Amino acid sequence: MKVTMKMKPRTYWGGAAFLAVLAVALPALAEETSVADSVIHLAYALDTFYFLMSGALVMWMAAGFAMLEAGLVRGKNTVEILTKNVALYSIACIMYMVVGYNIMYGGGPNGVIPGLSFFLGADNAVDDVLKSGGDIYYSGMSDFFFQVVFVATAMSIVSGAVAERMKLWSFLLFAVVMTGVIYPVQGYWKWGGGFLDALGFLDFAGSGVVHLCGASAAIAGVLLLGARKGKYTDGRVNAIPGANLPMATLGTFILWLGWFGFNGGSELMVSNIEEANAVSMIFVNTNTAAAGGLVAALLFSRAWFGKADLTMALNGALAGLVAITAEPLTPSPLLSTIVGAIGGLIVVASIVFIDKAKIDDPVGAISVHGVVGIWGLLAVSFTNPEGSLVAQLIGAGVIFAWVFGTSFITWLIIKAIMGIRVSEEEEMEGCDISECGLDAYPEFTKD
Amino acid sequence: MKVTMKMKPRTYWGGAAFLAVLAVALPALAEETSVADSVIHLAYALDTFYFLMSGALVMWMAAGFAMLEAGLVRGKNTVEILTKNVALYSIACIMYMVVGYNIMYGGGPNGVIPGLSFFLGADNAVDDVLKSGGDIYYSGMSDFFFQVVFVATAMSIVSGAVAERMKLWSFLLFAVVMTGVIYPVQGYWKWGGGFLDALGFLDFAGSGVVHLCGASAAIAGVLLLGARKGKYTDGRVNAIPGANLPMATLGTFILWLGWFGFNGGSELMVSNIEEANAVSMIFVNTNTAAAGGLVAALLFSRAWFGKADLTMALNGALAGLVAITAEPLTPSPLLSTIVGAIGGLIVVASIVFIDKAKIDDPVGAISVHGVVGIWGLLAVSFTNPEGSLVAQLIGAGVIFAWVFGTSFITWLIIKAIMGIRVSEEEEMEGCDISECGLDAYPEFTKD
Amino acid sequence: MKVTMKMKPRTYWGGAAFLAVLAVALPALAEETSVADSVIHLAYALDTFYFLMSGALVMWMAAGFAMLEAGLVRGKNTVEILTKNVALYSIACIMYMVVGYNIMYGGGPNGVIPGLSFFLGADNAVDDVLKSGGDIYYSGMSDFFFQVVFVATAMSIVSGAVAERMKLWSFLLFAVVMTGVIYPVQGYWKWGGGFLDALGFLDFAGSGVVHLCGASAAIAGVLLLGARKGKYTDGRVNAIPGANLPMATLGTFILWLGWFGFNGGSELMVSNIEEANAVSMIFVNTNTAAAGGLVAALLFSRAWFGKADLTMALNGALAGLVAITAEPLTPSPLLSTIVGAIGGLIVVASIVFIDKAKIDDPVGAISVHGVVGIWGLLAVSFTNPEGSLVAQLIGAGVIFAWVFGTSFITWLIIKAIMGIRVSEEEEMEGCDISECGLDAYPEFTKD
Repeated sequence: MKVTMKMKPRTYWGGAAFLAVLAVALPALAEETSVADSVIHLAYALDTFYFLMSGALVMWMAAGFAMLEAGLVRGKNTVEILTKNVALYSIACIMYMVVGYNIMYGGGPNGVIPGLSFFLGADNAVDDVLKSGGDIYYSGMSDFFFQVVFVATAMSIVSGAVAERMKLWSFLLFAVVMTGVIYPVQGYWKWGGGFLDALGFLDFAGSGVVHLCGASAAIAGVLLLGARKGKYTDGRVNAIPGANLPMATLGTFILWLGWFGFNGGSELMVSNIEEANAVSMIFVNTNTAAAGGLVAALLFSRAWFGKADLTMALNGALAGLVAITAEPLTPSPLLSTIVGAIGGLIVVASIVFIDKAKIDDPVGAISVHGVVGIWGLLAVSFTNPEGSLVAQLIGAGVIFAWVFGTSFITWLIIKAIMGIRVSEEEEMEGCDISECGLDAYPEFTKD
Repeated sequence: MKVTMKMKPRTYWGGAAFLAVLAVALPALAEETSVADSVIHLAYALDTFYFLMSGALVMWMAAGFAMLEAGLVRGKNTVEILTKNVALYSIACIMYMVVGYNIMYGGGPNGVIPGLSFFLGADNAVDDVLKSGGDIYYSGMSDFFFQVVFVATAMSIVSGAVAERMKLWSFLLFAVVMTGVIYPVQGYWKWGGGFLDALGFLDFAGSGVVHLCGASAAIAGVLLLGARKGKYTDGRVNAIPGANLPMATLGTFILWLGWFGFNGGSELMVSNIEEANAVSMIFVNTNTAAAGGLVAALLFSRAWFGKADLTMALNGALAGLVAITAEPLTPSPLLSTIVGAIGGLIVVASIVFIDKAKIDDPVGAISVHGVVGIWGLLAVSFTNPEGSLVAQLIGAGVIFAWVFGTSFITWLIIKAIMGIRVSEEEEMEGCDISECGLDAYPEFTKD
Repeated sequence: MKVTMKMKPRTYWGGAAFLAVLAVALPALAEETSVADSVIHLAYALDTFYFLMSGALVMWMAAGFAMLEAGLVRGKNTVEILTKNVALYSIACIMYMVVGYNIMYGGGPNGVIPGLSFFLGADNAVDDVLKSGGDIYYSGMSDFFFQVVFVATAMSIVSGAVAERMKLWSFLLFAVVMTGVIYPVQGYWKWGGGFLDALGFLDFAGSGVVHLCGASAAIAGVLLLGARKGKYTDGRVNAIPGANLPMATLGTFILWLGWFGFNGGSELMVSNIEEANAVSMIFVNTNTAAAGGLVAALLFSRAWFGKADLTMALNGALAGLVAITAEPLTPSPLLSTIVGAIGGLIVVASIVFIDKAKIDDPVGAISVHGVVGIWGLLAVSFTNPEGSLVAQLIGAGVIFAWVFGTSFITWLIIKAIMGIRVSEEEEMEGCDISECGLDAYPEFTKD
């Protein structure tokens, strides 16, 4: 028996025309042009599909951050952190569509002030692609999809650091500003072709533009918020264990998987031998940097604390991923392992140091994405021959200054308007009941 | 050093022959035909691969439903709902292979009564593809894979609505009938080229054929089952909170991710510029409709109940996804956001209303997939110039009438044979122990 | 409005050159060679991308094993099993990169003793690919990525079987030896072109090379470790229920999804009609074998124990997957369902039998991957015309003998050096506190 072609009838989309035309044209053999054109069609389709799959993997990272953070907070603050995570992803998607994408990629007069020319509209016309000489090689909508999930990643970093004490709606208001304006402006400076790019600052997939950016906004919020009640008492640092470590581990695995899209998709093209090799190298380096970060953090925590601290190991893997993100292509796999492993060592030390400094970051987001993000940027000057330590330092400094400064002002304004911290009673009771009216685990938690 | 090509030896599959032949042929340069043919080979391969990746994403939605439902029921009924979900997916795969696919795509004499001509057999021959003029452009087996995971989605909708009180084996028996016959017949009417399709009824990826279908079967079951003990007492509606909200949130994220395959794959082709643009637009619209639904439901629940209800927000995202599923291609991203947001508003109102009507749907499946499924179908008449409100209403009515009617009869027969509801003691104790002999969280639950 | 092509500037990778060259060349129409070359470019890119997506799915299986095992152990041993899983994946990635990949695919003098010629270096040069006549058709780095995640799968099998009583660091030391040497040597014998391959032993994606291999190492460890305290008392077998069955179910779904990459990617090529058909058939057969295994195990456990045992059903699905892995291409979907269903029956009987034999395997890994792995290998002689029962028996025997023997010795040495079992007090208290200093669910577990 034969499988016949069964399809959902497409009544309004004439896409099959291309192959039909091709098939008519070929027997004549006079029309090599159509074969050449169909190769361009195919390459465009492959690059677009690769972009969409990469974007889907990055979108999946939103689930990773949600699970990681939900696992690392206490049961009484879990619903609120989940609500923040699903809502910030949605807000990021809408704000970046309405304004952020335009700011980031709308060009501008001088590389500093972005232009504004709403351009999310019709996609590339077939003729324009065929005549572009390879300049237009994937769908503009697929580019938007890939970019929009990156914004959500940056914003996800913030929610972990301010967990267990920040008001839900203040946080979401900040998300509007961050994803609509703060992130896109510095994104324009680098990926939109602005002055940081002109300067020779290198950041392949966003150790700076995404991770340091998110961490800089987070630290501004944390400084204004203060520590959780009971975290620092009588000069002691008290551990506040997370409620659900399998969930946190799942979140880390999700992030690890999603990162193949994050870094792999940032090559932006896969459709020829060199690019396919490059994307493959990025997959291998991304994976091994995470492995190196995890092993280094696990061994370091064993040596330092006498125990194999799972949360440190998870943060080590994430640190390896953040560290390699600024340059996942030029180093060898072995060098990538080392870059990741150094990230893993840094993150353990940084988490302990930041805790000692009484900056309360419940999930270690500032260390993972900020401190290690800077390491990732600096490492480029060792792993990529075109990297310049000076340019990397300037880039890191500019991103931090812009995001920290504007975030601090934004948090201040929000604080003045509606406050940013829940009341002491609400914090004791947990944010879940007061903010969301629900209990994450109504049958489990001992009270 | 050089990476040599290392492979698992394929001893019985002569697939590499094509490239070898190509390579021999090319130096001659006389054989442009082989280049043209190899372009057809590549396009076929790309469309097939896109189909398989889309299908894998939809398969993943089975995990999403399982986690969503497991998170929203009480601990004592969790093992049973998990068992239902893994078993219904398996049953759907087997029944649709054995009979359903044939009913749905086997043609028929008059567009109403489906034909029966078992055709799941050999895949397309190379020559047939090359000579088809573009009519055959992907693997028939990849089509089956994509279709079979859709059936499972429809059936997954039912399990949530009848949770916490329906007998396991009665449910699984219903799954056999639903996935083998009920779903495929109405699928034939639309996607198999039957009378609903001829009528101009539009349903791109299944707001009606999948979601309304599942919800119609669910409501028949719920009406026969009655409410859970303790749900409606003394005229009051009592909330029965779910045991594990991080799990429910994870389920929602999984569904969101899977939906890119659900809608994106339903374009059925990606291999040229227009189709790649179309698939990209579908990804963007699917994502933004979910975001719109979530934000709208969150704001609405905040305004109505005074709290940011996470479960409403999750249902809002799902409602946005269901709403855009009937037409994710023609609207702009902004319009898609609005379609999704209206879905989010509807779902909150519908859940409250259905609860007030004492129809007990523990996870809100009837509202999310049924009520919003109808909204999605009707919205097509506004978002697609070819949409007709009359045709959409007829389509929705026919699907509901067929599925509700046949499901009601099926449930009745099952009830007569073996009963459909667990005993009162079993319900008090929880279905897990009586049906499955296991406790989902033996160490956590109090009592 | 128009979407212009916005990209992250790629400052050091000249990949767009290919399309530009192509576009210049085409108008001349004299250069059919460049069109033919660009087809080879595209095919290489598609096969590489397919490999990377497959590898990403297999990587995801590491999360599946972690969740499955974390759900099936008790709360007090959960952090340790999570730590083992994230660490073994990382160790596998590093060891296989440093030495294992070379052993497995470095060739060798006689098909028994592997060669050693470190070859993980530069990827394929463009010219070499174009001139290879189809012999080189995907990125070497993508091959490494795909292979490395397989090693992790084999090692993941071990962690479940030795759960709840083995020392963390002894386990990780074993992982170093297993992933660096034991697995690669037998991998060389089959997939590296060694004597088992020459013998006609067939193992498409690794029922033997991966699953039986993992189980053989596991059984050696279990025999040396002994059973958990309280498992076998006074001649009775006591059930020790897992703490979190939704997590275990999620793990199973993750493994099911990942298996599409595991089997589907093992076809190694997708870029023409025959190969695309083959990959599609593999997806369908993989899915239906799992479905068959689940349904068979569920019905069998219902008939035998009187209850629908969820953990048996999950193991049934995994058994179906393991069973079809040795040959997912040649059987029809119906035959694949049967192969999977037999796997599901075997696994239930095997779990009960092994338990009666007082071999304590907390998650059933030896039955799922070992016993059913052998069934999968033997089934090839019925489902593939080229299969030979004798060759399959020899292959199974050789893999078991090698892996069991070397593992046993390795465990013995580790036992002599540092011990392999935690102390009795640590076991009572749980490995989490003693090994990791953390509690997986500090707020949930009743103590």
